[in-house]
Amino acid sequence: MKYCFGVDLGGTTVKMGLFSSEGEILEKWEIPTRREEHGAYILPDIAASIHEKCSLKNLGKEEIIGVGIGVPAPVDQRGIVKGTVNLGWGYKNVKEELEELTGLRVKVGNDANMAALGEMWLGAGKGEPNLIMLTLGTGVGGGILVDGVPLVGTHGAGGEVGHMKVNLDEKRVCGCGKRGCLEQYASATGIAYLAEKRLAENDDPTPLRDFDKVTAKEVFDCLKAGDSVAEDVVETFGRYLGMGIANIAAVCDPTVAIIGGGVSKAGPILLDYVKKYYQEYVFFADKDLQFVLAELGNDAGICGAAKLVL
Amino acid sequence: MKYCFGVDLGGTTVKMGLFSSEGEILEKWEIPTRREEHGAYILPDIAASIHEKCSLKNLGKEEIIGVGIGVPAPVDQRGIVKGTVNLGWGYKNVKEELEELTGLRVKVGNDANMAALGEMWLGAGKGEPNLIMLTLGTGVGGGILVDGVPLVGTHGAGGEVGHMKVNLDEKRVCGCGKRGCLEQYASATGIAYLAEKRLAENDDPTPLRDFDKVTAKEVFDCLKAGDSVAEDVVETFGRYLGMGIANIAAVCDPTVAIIGGGVSKAGPILLDYVKKYYQEYVFFADKDLQFVLAELGNDAGICGAAKLVL
Repeated sequence: MKYCFGVDLGGTTVKMGLFSSEGEILEKWEIPTRREEHGAYILPDIAASIHEKCSLKNLGKEEIIGVGIGVPAPVDQRGIVKGTVNLGWGYKNVKEELEELTGLRVKVGNDANMAALGEMWLGAGKGEPNLIMLTLGTGVGGGILVDGVPLVGTHGAGGEVGHMKVNLDEKRVCGCGKRGCLEQYASATGIAYLAEKRLAENDDPTPLRDFDKVTAKEVFDCLKAGDSVAEDVVETFGRYLGMGIANIAAVCDPTVAIIGGGVSKAGPILLDYVKKYYQEYVFFADKDLQFVLAELGNDAGICGAAKLVL
Repeated sequence: MKYCFGVDLGGTTVKMGLFSSEGEILEKWEIPTRREEHGAYILPDIAASIHEKCSLKNLGKEEIIGVGIGVPAPVDQRGIVKGTVNLGWGYKNVKEELEELTGLRVKVGNDANMAALGEMWLGAGKGEPNLIMLTLGTGVGGGILVDGVPLVGTHGAGGEVGHMKVNLDEKRVCGCGKRGCLEQYASATGIAYLAEKRLAENDDPTPLRDFDKVTAKEVFDCLKAGDSVAEDVVETFGRYLGMGIANIAAVCDPTVAIIGGGVSKAGPILLDYVKKYYQEYVFFADKDLQFVLAELGNDAGICGAAKLVL
């Protein structure tokens, strides 16, 4: 049997996994992400943890196929990061540095692409090489696979679909500095904004008014309880996300769209509203796209990173 | 020296070319597209023309690498067409049939993807494996290359960017049956519509009123002559096309955007208006995308088809 490591580098913890080459997760653990001194300890810490695991398990180098790592930043095809928001890194040749530190073959990808790859390998997109995954959390992350390979692009910014323009009339500024990005309507933050805006429109009674601050979770809870104001909010969410996914489909014609992230905990009802508008907007050749919820949760990143190196 | 054939199958003529494997066009010719009997003669005519050329040139089968053919319809990875608007074909296994007829290796692609591939090989995108090409004609065609390979997608509908949604408020129906598609603003037909709409808005004097029917060419001619009403029209065109390309870039992060088709004969001034809005809308990581005009004109299709088989 051969082995590989999958690493999901986040802003506060590094998730790590030891996998068999057949796709079994043998062990999972976490170490803290030390961001001091411009993140200088991050890769050495990861390498030390891999060495430690190898000694504990008595694994020789010849048994390890390699290490895959997902990074929360654009990564180019050579495994180079130009800058990060969360880690303290500026320019960093992640592949080269981690190969030197571990003595193992390393492959590097963007975290959203790794999540998509993980879902393709072991989760909701099993066996579907043409898929897209949208992670609806604080922001909207996107990963796109074409023939099983992440669409990396020129700057490693392929799949950054949270910043597709879906509303030319928006006045609010997105975190990226532009206006009218998909992320402003389809993220947890976006849904909370849509709710606030709807509540201010008139005095329609709704249990949403009982909360100090309405979150995406409350909106979906009230929707499930039959509240029509919450439904208005989810309709708007569904319209923009449906439009965004229809436009992604016009570009890359995938088989499956996987929806993950905190917002997706709302469950299948979320997909109903997205599908409704997707069908209204999409080019006819793409109309049989399948919508599914992500299955791997927090493990998607380590699974995809492991798959990258296999 | 080895040779290959590039074939660009259109609704009225079949363009054909004999190429050296180094990328020299040795000869170009055309035959009519016979659409009678559900297009039953089309592939036999093409095969006969290839045989004839081989005898005339004394080319043996072992000298021919193969035949690439671009088809005006979605084509899947196996070279199968499910239906066409212009040729009379329903389901057709183009690859298999043409291989039997010619005894040569055949590869099949969508015509817009072939144009993009041609421009990458011998035209405006030389040496740029991540590029997009938009053909602004009666409609808007799109071809996308990722690492030098056409993005075909699940149904062969990858790159159908003319049917991205750019306006949720549009009432007019597009040829595809939906509303607010990019094609409704960025094609020759779309620009003529935008002009008509602008002229009806008020009585502003403009030389555009002197034409019985305003076409895209007149709009750009009047713009070049300094007419401000024509400029309004081109601003609107630029806004929607800039938004469309920004959204394509968010998905696949290309290096170069090539603009071709009849509308592109307006020249570099067209790019100015598209770039202006692209820069306004695009995600920061994609802001250095290069915009260029297509160079190969009607030869793009045969060049790309030839490249497909090399």
